[in-house]
Amino acid sequence: MISPLGILAGGGPLPMTIAEAVTKTGRQVFICALEGIGEPGLSKYPHDWVSFGSVGRVLKQFKMAKCQEIVMIGHVKRPERAAIIPDLGALRNALALGKIVLGGDDHILSGIADFLETKGFSVLGAHDVIPDSLIGEGVLGLSRPQAGDEKDIAKGFSVLQALGKLDVGQAVVVSGGHVLAVEAAEGTDFMLKRVAEIRASGGAVHPRGVLVKGPKPGQDLRVDMPVIGPVTVELVAAAGLSGIITQADCVLCHDRQSLVEIADKLDIFIEGKIAPN
Amino acid sequence: MISPLGILAGGGPLPMTIAEAVTKTGRQVFICALEGIGEPGLSKYPHDWVSFGSVGRVLKQFKMAKCQEIVMIGHVKRPERAAIIPDLGALRNALALGKIVLGGDDHILSGIADFLETKGFSVLGAHDVIPDSLIGEGVLGLSRPQAGDEKDIAKGFSVLQALGKLDVGQAVVVSGGHVLAVEAAEGTDFMLKRVAEIRASGGAVHPRGVLVKGPKPGQDLRVDMPVIGPVTVELVAAAGLSGIITQADCVLCHDRQSLVEIADKLDIFIEGKIAPN
Repeated sequence: MISPLGILAGGGPLPMTIAEAVTKTGRQVFICALEGIGEPGLSKYPHDWVSFGSVGRVLKQFKMAKCQEIVMIGHVKRPERAAIIPDLGALRNALALGKIVLGGDDHILSGIADFLETKGFSVLGAHDVIPDSLIGEGVLGLSRPQAGDEKDIAKGFSVLQALGKLDVGQAVVVSGGHVLAVEAAEGTDFMLKRVAEIRASGGAVHPRGVLVKGPKPGQDLRVDMPVIGPVTVELVAAAGLSGIITQADCVLCHDRQSLVEIADKLDIFIEGKIAPN
Repeated sequence: MISPLGILAGGGPLPMTIAEAVTKTGRQVFICALEGIGEPGLSKYPHDWVSFGSVGRVLKQFKMAKCQEIVMIGHVKRPERAAIIPDLGALRNALALGKIVLGGDDHILSGIADFLETKGFSVLGAHDVIPDSLIGEGVLGLSRPQAGDEKDIAKGFSVLQALGKLDVGQAVVVSGGHVLAVEAAEGTDFMLKRVAEIRASGGAVHPRGVLVKGPKPGQDLRVDMPVIGPVTVELVAAAGLSGIITQADCVLCHDRQSLVEIADKLDIFIEGKIAPN
């Protein structure tokens, strides 16, 4: 019998999506959910609430639940260092964990994944356990890019590639050849709201435009997969854009059914595309 | 006797700064100020209020005032095309002006400058008439970058260079090696407010950081010079950053005296630097 899937759950809807999808296949799950961050609904599955410092507890719980594979999923907001209270397991692994924390924000999640692997777990990406959520090559829904969108799409990929070399940028908005917004630390939703404001203030006159989204080169897809969902589609429409291009096989969609329904209703195209070289 | 300086004035404080600085030297000015956009205070100088379509009127006024040199300065928010009512002078030059308008937003101001030159005027950059406002190489005020800031500054210039090739980005914020924000269409002030929000929500833990600002390669400095002012310094401080780096000889400062006073008070460094190759 296959071992229960361990889910180390941060915030947002994705941990729930994964728990639902996996249990539907008959596989059990065990969730270690971050206190104050994970969705309360996760408690309907076998679970434990954990804090940032309770490393020993997390390892023990996953072992007791006989998990061999773990998925790390959901938003994480890093607490102040002083607010992290290490448990005994954390202290035992202080050297390894210290290196992770000092290694810089970008690589903390990767570091934790590597740490879990040294403890005998396999860390899977969300796309490994819910492959239906991965946006491959091709169009979702009814809308299609128009001929005039191709230039914006190409420019979007160019910006992502130029920035990706500098470890910046998961998304960009291009409209009529103009780059309206580049995502850095603020997140895609926040960026899209900004584009709506730019539109409202008359700062973008082209009637169409596209959100191009993909991972940075070297981004650890085990622990940090770009995601779009129904809200992304609504914000894209509110920003006066015509569609979303995701780098094929590198972006997850949350709640595919609602996503496609809303995209069809709002006439927003969603297409997975292989990034040009 | 030197001819009066013609000022084609958009919004914001800079047209006033230029009028004041130039008249202080004994040279007269004549201002064509955009209705509803130019500061009301401009009317204390010889002036006329003009609309976007009144091309003939602008040419005539500058000629009557015997202007030979013109500065185009201030924010411009482009009206809906339908709201532009061309005057006879605009219709006479419909072919040249049509090409400018259809040529894309980026180059409209350059196009207008070129058009004015075909009519016998010389178009000067703001830095030509108020050279004191140009930030050269070196530090303004008392604060200095610290050793740890150098990496952020270098990264900021790298991002500007990578994006500049794609005609994007006049400014970027880097903190502890992380690019927190990239400016596209939203403007520097808006970007800095975003960084303050990212800080407030715990999304940036490094205690310092820098705004790096410069023109894009090929940016027409006659009509579109990057500017910082006292408000920029306040927003930089509010965003939890330590200083501002401007590309030397390519960025204007508005109200240098207040700028330096506020920077000293808030312990913000301001340095003009030659961009690395």
